[in-house]
Amino acid sequence: MIITSTKNPAVAEVRELVRRARARRESGTYIVEGRRMVSEVPPERFVRGFVTEAFLERCGTAALGGLPYDTVTDAVMDAMADTVTPQGILAIVRMHDVRPEDLPGDGAPLYLVLEGISDPGNMGTLLRTAEGAGASAVVLAGDCADPYQPKAVRSSMGSLLRMPVCRMGDGAQAAALLQKKGVRCFGAALEGSVPYTEAAYTGPAALFVGSEAHGLARETVAAMDACVRIPMEGKVESLNAAVAGAVLLYEAKRQRGQQV
Amino acid sequence: MIITSTKNPAVAEVRELVRRARARRESGTYIVEGRRMVSEVPPERFVRGFVTEAFLERCGTAALGGLPYDTVTDAVMDAMADTVTPQGILAIVRMHDVRPEDLPGDGAPLYLVLEGISDPGNMGTLLRTAEGAGASAVVLAGDCADPYQPKAVRSSMGSLLRMPVCRMGDGAQAAALLQKKGVRCFGAALEGSVPYTEAAYTGPAALFVGSEAHGLARETVAAMDACVRIPMEGKVESLNAAVAGAVLLYEAKRQRGQQV
Repeated sequence: MIITSTKNPAVAEVRELVRRARARRESGTYIVEGRRMVSEVPPERFVRGFVTEAFLERCGTAALGGLPYDTVTDAVMDAMADTVTPQGILAIVRMHDVRPEDLPGDGAPLYLVLEGISDPGNMGTLLRTAEGAGASAVVLAGDCADPYQPKAVRSSMGSLLRMPVCRMGDGAQAAALLQKKGVRCFGAALEGSVPYTEAAYTGPAALFVGSEAHGLARETVAAMDACVRIPMEGKVESLNAAVAGAVLLYEAKRQRGQQV
Repeated sequence: MIITSTKNPAVAEVRELVRRARARRESGTYIVEGRRMVSEVPPERFVRGFVTEAFLERCGTAALGGLPYDTVTDAVMDAMADTVTPQGILAIVRMHDVRPEDLPGDGAPLYLVLEGISDPGNMGTLLRTAEGAGASAVVLAGDCADPYQPKAVRSSMGSLLRMPVCRMGDGAQAAALLQKKGVRCFGAALEGSVPYTEAAYTGPAALFVGSEAHGLARETVAAMDACVRIPMEGKVESLNAAVAGAVLLYEAKRQRGQQV
């Protein structure tokens, strides 16, 4: 059976999940779009797929890996999708937030802690960079963009499906919780007393990055083991939050790679 | 006199400069919006400012530094501006592209060469990060986003007003030109034979970053002195172009800071 009406309840459900953080939170699900990313959804988190006839003709059902799907018309897909030119495939996916007590932590974990990162593109890029740099999990503190928002999902390029994401109240609470696990907390701060290249991230470490506009909250700064400064030339007063996170993450990776 | 009509020729001129790369190219001017960035425009490149009455009442004319401006109504500003909620001030500014032969190059210059970076947000972020990392200039090769496009201007956070920008045909041409000046060319490439942390960027150096989708062109890769690889964990296959550029730029800065 093909869904031909935009009034079909499944269409309304997908639209809500695309548009409303609250609908995502209440259902514990979100939308993943596009062939590549849908094919990367772990089967146990796959709720239901939707594909256009044109997509099926062009690409078949390989991206769906035998999982349940409905066929829809192009007009229905246009009504569902967040993208302007949908690829013709999307899926409802279950969230997989990790509880603080379940954070992966053997060996020397590396956490990225985000506080007040409000831009969904930066959120997705930070998830992607965190996976690339070998972080164990991304912790969200304070008022962050929803990582399950469509633009964040897209910008993560699939990393959201793989990186453990954990919510922990505000930045100071996150620091207290992590420090109890033996993790050293490093805050990126303009007034940081240590250049970021002079701190050692080779043990269990958490890198705290705040919003571009406000930086880390004062209470968060006070809770850090050390505040680190990314030096800036010219008249630059701050870096893009995704850039600051990347510079710290890759310095940690560099140091860890040099260990014998 | 206050401009009250959106049909005023100045309004049409600004709208064209906001919306069309061709209008910018032909006039050699572009639009800078917002109090902070307008106040940073060097006077010799300032063509004409536009402010709303509300802005004048709130902030006065300090941001304009005695330079020529017209007052406009809110409706006229809304029609001119690219932003959804304009701050009430914008300016027409002269471009300042640098010719290859005029590139700053004393000491050990550090260039960022962008090839095929099509996202204006990434373009602006790369300009900002290049300034922060102490780069001497940003070179545009191949088909890049227009750095004078409104979103790129905004994302640069003012760095576009300060960083020399230079256009140089394609990536291979840029490499040939830079190598003639004694600059070593390093290309970011997945298949790079050297981890990026093991190359030395302390002499005259150019960091080449290609598009996320396609990387550097084959001819560009062939023209490099060395191709460097940013290692990635997990299933990450590439980094955001602004992130890749930032990781390379700050590694160069780190190495340069360690020199005595």
